[in-house]
Amino acid sequence: MKDKLLSPSIFIGVQGDGMISFGSGQPDLPPPERVFRILPKYRQFKYGLIPGQVNLRKALAKQYGGTADDFVITNGASEALDLTFRSICKPGDKILLHKPYYYSYLPMINFNNLEPVFTETIRGKIDISDFDNKVRGCKAVLINSPSNPTGRVQEVSTLKEIERLCSDLDITIISDEVYKDLIYVRENYMLKGPQVVTINSFSKTFAMCGLRIGYLYSNDRSIVDDVIEIKTHSSMNTNILGQEMAYEATKVPSAYVDNQVAIWKERRDVVYKGLMDLGLELWNPEGAFYVLPKVKDPRKMVWDLFKKHKVITYLGEWFGAPDRIRLSYALDVDKIEEGLSRIEKYLDS
Amino acid sequence: MKDKLLSPSIFIGVQGDGMISFGSGQPDLPPPERVFRILPKYRQFKYGLIPGQVNLRKALAKQYGGTADDFVITNGASEALDLTFRSICKPGDKILLHKPYYYSYLPMINFNNLEPVFTETIRGKIDISDFDNKVRGCKAVLINSPSNPTGRVQEVSTLKEIERLCSDLDITIISDEVYKDLIYVRENYMLKGPQVVTINSFSKTFAMCGLRIGYLYSNDRSIVDDVIEIKTHSSMNTNILGQEMAYEATKVPSAYVDNQVAIWKERRDVVYKGLMDLGLELWNPEGAFYVLPKVKDPRKMVWDLFKKHKVITYLGEWFGAPDRIRLSYALDVDKIEEGLSRIEKYLDS
Repeated sequence: MKDKLLSPSIFIGVQGDGMISFGSGQPDLPPPERVFRILPKYRQFKYGLIPGQVNLRKALAKQYGGTADDFVITNGASEALDLTFRSICKPGDKILLHKPYYYSYLPMINFNNLEPVFTETIRGKIDISDFDNKVRGCKAVLINSPSNPTGRVQEVSTLKEIERLCSDLDITIISDEVYKDLIYVRENYMLKGPQVVTINSFSKTFAMCGLRIGYLYSNDRSIVDDVIEIKTHSSMNTNILGQEMAYEATKVPSAYVDNQVAIWKERRDVVYKGLMDLGLELWNPEGAFYVLPKVKDPRKMVWDLFKKHKVITYLGEWFGAPDRIRLSYALDVDKIEEGLSRIEKYLDS
Repeated sequence: MKDKLLSPSIFIGVQGDGMISFGSGQPDLPPPERVFRILPKYRQFKYGLIPGQVNLRKALAKQYGGTADDFVITNGASEALDLTFRSICKPGDKILLHKPYYYSYLPMINFNNLEPVFTETIRGKIDISDFDNKVRGCKAVLINSPSNPTGRVQEVSTLKEIERLCSDLDITIISDEVYKDLIYVRENYMLKGPQVVTINSFSKTFAMCGLRIGYLYSNDRSIVDDVIEIKTHSSMNTNILGQEMAYEATKVPSAYVDNQVAIWKERRDVVYKGLMDLGLELWNPEGAFYVLPKVKDPRKMVWDLFKKHKVITYLGEWFGAPDRIRLSYALDVDKIEEGLSRIEKYLDS
């Protein structure tokens, strides 16, 4: 039944019954309490503005620079990315991805009738000379740092070189920065410039995955206008109540984020050391909450871990890394340790 | 400045200051109170199932027949329609529309790289012989009864003929039934059969426009699966809290809907008689909450009503009816009467 391992969807919603899940990439700790504090008195019901509520966009402009008009609030980062493709591309356009990549990128490129081009990475880091070769002729590049699934953060010098190259070649940079607040090794460096579309969401930083509030930010008015025009017809405003909850999240003191990062870092250390101790080859995650160890026969391992050891992991091949498996460490340290001991049993058997 | 009359977006959000708006198509009366009653205790935040929450889909299956697996909950009817196009069509496919049509249909067909084909209507009613000629070679037909912007309801005999024709020719029927609960002249006749995709939402019946909960229903498992596959990447689950609110709406007694229809019918009578008394040519609305009178120089009328008389109306040309204007009567009778007297002043001037 390993044929069933076609996509992560077979694991979505699987839980309970002693299952340890290193599968889904969502925080287990709840959002800041103030996000829920507005609910009891909420009574709005009418259409909101298509680009999103002004209070939320103003709060984002304070964080990012620019003005409220440079932002569009979307149904998660997913819709922000999809709308960006739909607004800037025509069928057949080429999009450069660095491998391994987030598993939604390829299907999204396919159903938008675009063509993927891949640049390989070295231990998860972009090789700028390969990038330079492959980027020519592309309509856009999609950068994801910190990366899901590698947990790696691109070097600032690489990011600046990408800015320069794409500016010279007039290529749009789509920068998926949904993990920008979860970096263990340095401050985030936000890709910038008129050719950059930044994608982010409240899902990872504020644990609001199910509420689906994402956004895009661009200084190019024509991109923003095209995105709004498409969204006017494809989904209209993003859920107005979710937006108010996200607005509350923008008021949370930065200590909240620092605390979250400390928790993620502790888990990262446990998972990284645990997998190293089991003799697996892997890169130390610098951000996000994933590891991508190299393993023998990944399909057998993912399937047997699931069926025989009640451990969910994801196949690396879904992310363009067929010799690896992905583990999300969005679960508490006790469960991580129990999961590691089950993986040890699998490896010993 | 009549050049600005390119789309309804110039009027969206314009209000106050004595403005009477026959513009936006959204209920002014609030949703049932029980929709808000779940908010104080709500604490969910994790990803939901991509097709939508089971309780909501089960409640819909009770109303429509079928099973929960035949439904996908979406970001409003807009996303349901967009996902349907994306799942069943490839670039260049032809889509049959009856004219006048809802103003989002054409942009959505365009940005999905599809080709519109039009069938003219007679006083808003589909002419089945013209339909029969035009439908051949189309991938899908888009039926909207009751119609925005005409307020007209298609004859049951016509709808049955469309079912038969499309079944014989293996053409998908996309049936946008967002106004199915707001019919003044008869019970709704729901288009049915394995080739039908039904689109609906909680926006009109339950006044939940801003919360963006729509859905699609199909007995064709391959369409539902394709929609879920695209939505997995393009927006993931629909806002989980909006879905719970919609689930509450499914528990509202049918008397609520009957009361709403009675209110709409009273307004319909005032608007229809008022515009007839002003000498305008129009069709009596049989459902929804729009009228589409024929007027002289629609662009001048819409612009002057807005600038000189503080009345918002929509241009018929946005809906494929260039010799008409659209009025939504989603406002109370006093305001409708004030608006009508301002329109009288314009016509007298």
